[in-house]
Amino acid sequence: MTNSSSKYGEFALIADLFAPLAKTPGAFGLTDDAATLAVPRGHELVVTADALVADVHFFADDPPETIARKALRVNLSDLAAKGAKPIGYLLALSLPRNVRYDWLRKFARGLAKDQREFGIALLGGDTTATPGPLTIAITALGVVPKGKMLRRKGAKVGDLVFVSGTIGDAGAGLALLKRKARTPKSLIARYRLPTPRLSLGFALRGVARASIDVSDGLMADLGHIAEVSKVRVVVDAARVPVSRGVDLIAAVTAGDDYEIAFTAPKRDAVMRAARKAGVAVTEIGIVERGEGAVLRDAKGREVRLKKKGYAHF
Amino acid sequence: MTNSSSKYGEFALIADLFAPLAKTPGAFGLTDDAATLAVPRGHELVVTADALVADVHFFADDPPETIARKALRVNLSDLAAKGAKPIGYLLALSLPRNVRYDWLRKFARGLAKDQREFGIALLGGDTTATPGPLTIAITALGVVPKGKMLRRKGAKVGDLVFVSGTIGDAGAGLALLKRKARTPKSLIARYRLPTPRLSLGFALRGVARASIDVSDGLMADLGHIAEVSKVRVVVDAARVPVSRGVDLIAAVTAGDDYEIAFTAPKRDAVMRAARKAGVAVTEIGIVERGEGAVLRDAKGREVRLKKKGYAHF
Repeated sequence: MTNSSSKYGEFALIADLFAPLAKTPGAFGLTDDAATLAVPRGHELVVTADALVADVHFFADDPPETIARKALRVNLSDLAAKGAKPIGYLLALSLPRNVRYDWLRKFARGLAKDQREFGIALLGGDTTATPGPLTIAITALGVVPKGKMLRRKGAKVGDLVFVSGTIGDAGAGLALLKRKARTPKSLIARYRLPTPRLSLGFALRGVARASIDVSDGLMADLGHIAEVSKVRVVVDAARVPVSRGVDLIAAVTAGDDYEIAFTAPKRDAVMRAARKAGVAVTEIGIVERGEGAVLRDAKGREVRLKKKGYAHF
Repeated sequence: MTNSSSKYGEFALIADLFAPLAKTPGAFGLTDDAATLAVPRGHELVVTADALVADVHFFADDPPETIARKALRVNLSDLAAKGAKPIGYLLALSLPRNVRYDWLRKFARGLAKDQREFGIALLGGDTTATPGPLTIAITALGVVPKGKMLRRKGAKVGDLVFVSGTIGDAGAGLALLKRKARTPKSLIARYRLPTPRLSLGFALRGVARASIDVSDGLMADLGHIAEVSKVRVVVDAARVPVSRGVDLIAAVTAGDDYEIAFTAPKRDAVMRAARKAGVAVTEIGIVERGEGAVLRDAKGREVRLKKKGYAHF
């Protein structure tokens, strides 16, 4: 509908910045309408999509490299929690007219960096102008042996509950950025650049019974497991792994952690998987009869939470 | 980052409106982080992504049903031009806060209608708030027998050039809408609701040598074929199928047609494929040595075009 001439055209932009990211054979260097992808025999495809909007999911003045990498990683985190091996992604980028070429160059460099780190390629996408904020919609594709995807559904009464890494760092980092603080850098880094727990996801195949990535907040996401598994997930407040100085209640409801929360029947098997993956895992609770996800204090009383997680909308 | 309470939450929205669209087994009714998809033996996946932004790619006050269906169909059109059979799609929806539930209900109804028409299912997605315009990013997935995807690359000197349907209707429809005209309704309908030529795409497998869907404008899209095939595509102006009252030059540069433009060595095989598919196909030119896509008049002179197509950005 618009027909503006801008200082760089869509096709030049794709050719210059994004084609080098699409070097896998089936992507045809982004010179075709679509990409092809072979799924290895005995495997099935796992697909997920997440969109990030400037000043909703990240700060417009965050470094372009980390914006790109976060957009990719929140999708890879979904694949990780499903035990899937990522293959590639499609990127639909809606760009405000004032985006500078240099910003896009850094954005593409961030993607390139993570493509190398995670062994994936850009398979296609679309760039378009928008009168609104920068919007990054990514669809990530991975593979998993047939029928082996880790589901949210499947938690059973008596399962133990686990979570990887630490919870609440990203939320604390976001709170710091909101009040223009620059330190502790480690917390801000956790907000800007989450770590998809891919190796843990692989190792949990056949070990975990239910699994989710923590994006909305630990209690909210465990609530999703509880809902589809038709069980009650009970978390011991004292066992939740939080970094020094991070408030527990904020931590379990903040979201943006991109850790894996899961249930499993056998502690030993989980700990072996964690060691194999090189990812710290903490036992934090138990699955009971009932519904919902609840936090319990040392005396066994339920800790009331005003909200269970971050509402995207 | 925002944490607004809106009158409908993200999860309620997904459950109410979008879960019924995800009834295929691997989509898990949108209750999981990801969907699974099996690719039939001997086939490979074909993936494509296109984003539409309100008041860039459609009018914000277009009917919600046709907005939804157009967003889906522009993606299905890419699959059609590649000879792929669509299976499903992922939808990343960025919604302005003033979007009403009733609008979304109609939007979802439009998707449901086209899912039935094209035999596809919603596999996943994301809804998020945006301070900007409604943005619809869709990734469509299809399958094709291994190695049989129709490519833009592959046109050879001596090939004939063809296009399906009529060219320029959608562009004329857009021009009408821009000046608040309401008729002819047929042209406006072609702008609002393109027809992906899926049956033609299937029939052209093994028949066409190069193929593209006409989204940027006939001459621009044939230019893409010319570029990657390293040939010159020559179109006879008099042969381009345009509807009565539609200006030829506007037609071949307007875009939004979602017809298939392709080259093939054998006229008879093309016409058989077109009959089989039940889609009108017109021979419009020839592939020569050289580069670029050019329009020639009845005397063999090149018709100069100020622009070859619609610039999205």
